[in-house]
Amino acid sequence: MAAEIKSRAGGLHLWRNARLATMAEGAPGLGIVENGAIVARDGLIAYVGSEAAMPAALVQGADITDCEGRWITPGLIDCHTHLVYAGNRANEFEMRLAGATYEEVARAGGGIVSSVKSLRAASEDELVAQTLPRLDALLAEGVTTIEVKSGYGLDVDNEKKSLRAARRLGDQRRVTVRTTCLAAHALPPEARGDKDAFIDFVATDILPAVAAENLADAIDGFCEGIAFSPEQMARVFDKARALGLPVKLHADQLSNLHGAALAARYGALSADHLEYTDDEGAAAMAGAGTVATILPGAYYFIRETKKPPVELFRRHGVKMAVATDSNPGTSPLTSLLLTMNMAATLFGLTVEECLSGVTREAARALGLQEKTGTLESGKSADLAIWNIERPAELVYRMGFNPLHARIWRGQ
Amino acid sequence: MAAEIKSRAGGLHLWRNARLATMAEGAPGLGIVENGAIVARDGLIAYVGSEAAMPAALVQGADITDCEGRWITPGLIDCHTHLVYAGNRANEFEMRLAGATYEEVARAGGGIVSSVKSLRAASEDELVAQTLPRLDALLAEGVTTIEVKSGYGLDVDNEKKSLRAARRLGDQRRVTVRTTCLAAHALPPEARGDKDAFIDFVATDILPAVAAENLADAIDGFCEGIAFSPEQMARVFDKARALGLPVKLHADQLSNLHGAALAARYGALSADHLEYTDDEGAAAMAGAGTVATILPGAYYFIRETKKPPVELFRRHGVKMAVATDSNPGTSPLTSLLLTMNMAATLFGLTVEECLSGVTREAARALGLQEKTGTLESGKSADLAIWNIERPAELVYRMGFNPLHARIWRGQ
Ligand SMILES: [Zn+2]
Ligand SMILES: [Zn+2]
Repeated sequence: MAAEIKSRAGGLHLWRNARLATMAEGAPGLGIVENGAIVARDGLIAYVGSEAAMPAALVQGADITDCEGRWITPGLIDCHTHLVYAGNRANEFEMRLAGATYEEVARAGGGIVSSVKSLRAASEDELVAQTLPRLDALLAEGVTTIEVKSGYGLDVDNEKKSLRAARRLGDQRRVTVRTTCLAAHALPPEARGDKDAFIDFVATDILPAVAAENLADAIDGFCEGIAFSPEQMARVFDKARALGLPVKLHADQLSNLHGAALAARYGALSADHLEYTDDEGAAAMAGAGTVATILPGAYYFIRETKKPPVELFRRHGVKMAVATDSNPGTSPLTSLLLTMNMAATLFGLTVEECLSGVTREAARALGLQEKTGTLESGKSADLAIWNIERPAELVYRMGFNPLHARIWRGQ
Repeated sequence: MAAEIKSRAGGLHLWRNARLATMAEGAPGLGIVENGAIVARDGLIAYVGSEAAMPAALVQGADITDCEGRWITPGLIDCHTHLVYAGNRANEFEMRLAGATYEEVARAGGGIVSSVKSLRAASEDELVAQTLPRLDALLAEGVTTIEVKSGYGLDVDNEKKSLRAARRLGDQRRVTVRTTCLAAHALPPEARGDKDAFIDFVATDILPAVAAENLADAIDGFCEGIAFSPEQMARVFDKARALGLPVKLHADQLSNLHGAALAARYGALSADHLEYTDDEGAAAMAGAGTVATILPGAYYFIRETKKPPVELFRRHGVKMAVATDSNPGTSPLTSLLLTMNMAATLFGLTVEECLSGVTREAARALGLQEKTGTLESGKSADLAIWNIERPAELVYRMGFNPLHARIWRGQ
């Protein structure tokens, strides 16, 4: 272990003979560098650019990888997942296809309550074990940073258990994990329909307990008719602010409750889903620098027909991230490549928007824009090396993984 | 090599402690057997059923695999692909997302003509090499039989080259390959717009040359306003009949030219796409035993909005297969699991219809229903063994591969 840490700290590595899509802010298009090279020292990018212009002194004694003309992009970032859960909801999916109504599914014990029940019954070890295959599917496609939300625990112990399980994913695999407490996700059965009382409990009990153990990097909520009102979310956000934690919001997915504007008012890192967001909401997000996280997997899976207002986000200059929303109920999706294809095919995002959405803008949605998400000096050497002829292939194909190698923190 | 052949011929293998979805015709639902076992001898299924009822004498000296309660389904069958092609069309995809019209794409050398040009320029070895990664993606999800069409050659030598490359896939990998000559796919540039003359050429030159070398197991065509008329297809089918080859048809995808009825009139193995097929067409297919091959990948990728008349097929008792249509222009899809999810999510097929569509009915669409596609005695021991709790998971998940092992012909 000590040896590994030393190697990480002292590593000097050169990737040469590569084509780079740096995704650097302000660079035209994908920030393409032909005949490019990347040098990583101590896990950080020490040089990125033309191989010809690379200072020779920089790479003395470096391990050298000849990329044989392959493309390198930043390691991918999945900035919105509910990856930690127990069991799955394939049975509900099967029932609905066989003609069952949502009510019949609910009477059979389905819906989010079934995920709460399964998660509460699972030990932390079981949660980690059940989540790792899903994480591995994402990593196999070049993911180097992932956000993981709680939200199926809905009480102090089970929210903490979920977030500890999420943190442990980062010990078990070479990946950066960011955790988000989504205690304001749904009403647990024991709340007996009293949303205000539950929100009080979230603010006075769950969030402080989570913060006391430093288990969450951000606080999230589900603002929707079937979940919590903007007023209730504001109470959660006030508490997050008091605890010094940034916020995010599931906003305007099924109706326009002006969740995007609420998120912007609290300087949220991101507002997510946004199918029903209006001009005012987009303008507020632009003003606050709140990222719009586009989640086509849920749109596709629940056969939603209203698309997020991509044109509005472009016009206002709102940055767009793209994520899997991986969850058992509405998006059992563990491929960020497929997610990009959906964003393009279903919502008309361009190849550049898709690729920046799972790199630079996904990093911004996690507050990590200074650390990862682009190929730039000083950032973490998180790379994905691809067997492709052009970056558009990463968006165009469906169910194909052209990853050659994944590098996390220089290794 | 001799040793391998001997082992194949003499192998006796038992898979025990498994849950079986036999997909057998007439069995209720998925033909589920709990506590099941399968015995393969000489590559064929010698027993399938309850482990308790298995005759002990049958498995004396067998290699034994304990499946530890895993599910076994028939090996999957992708019964409609254009897998053999050169290059890809990611550039067109990128142009269209950036706002280019179909005309602008065509002026830039795009469209099917670009695939014809690339295929003609590639050697047979290059075609095989470029196709293998796509085939491997399918095999990794448990595919044991695949159909591969020509149709980017459009002259004698290049159609033969495509079909030879397709046959060679079966030498390079442990998979059953069925080839289909789709010379009547599109008009090559040298035909200068004369569809009738090209169809004459297909019938008098291409098909006989392909048949003489036994390169095709079936003949296919594209019956559509942008391709060939029903009358032109009938000439191709008459020739196929004279050559003793079964037929299939790309029918009613973008408009209703009554292609389904035409296919049925010729006793086609399958009619494929079928978005615009009407009641009369469905009735004709039912009468002829022509399988309806549902291709949701193309529907999704080209943002088609008219769905195939699944309810009509059910009412008439038309069997439905489900396939990737894997091709560079309208369905760059190499996951049969994802294809099932699309068939369920986009078209409302049930879990049972999806699973029979990629096993039993896909075999029927290839005329292989006596040889593979279900777990039944006497059929090829083509199996997929899965790390799942229930078969519905194979349809429910997106971008996740729970395959534990793939068995082709007993090994
Ligand atoms: Zn979510
Ligand atoms: Zn086709």
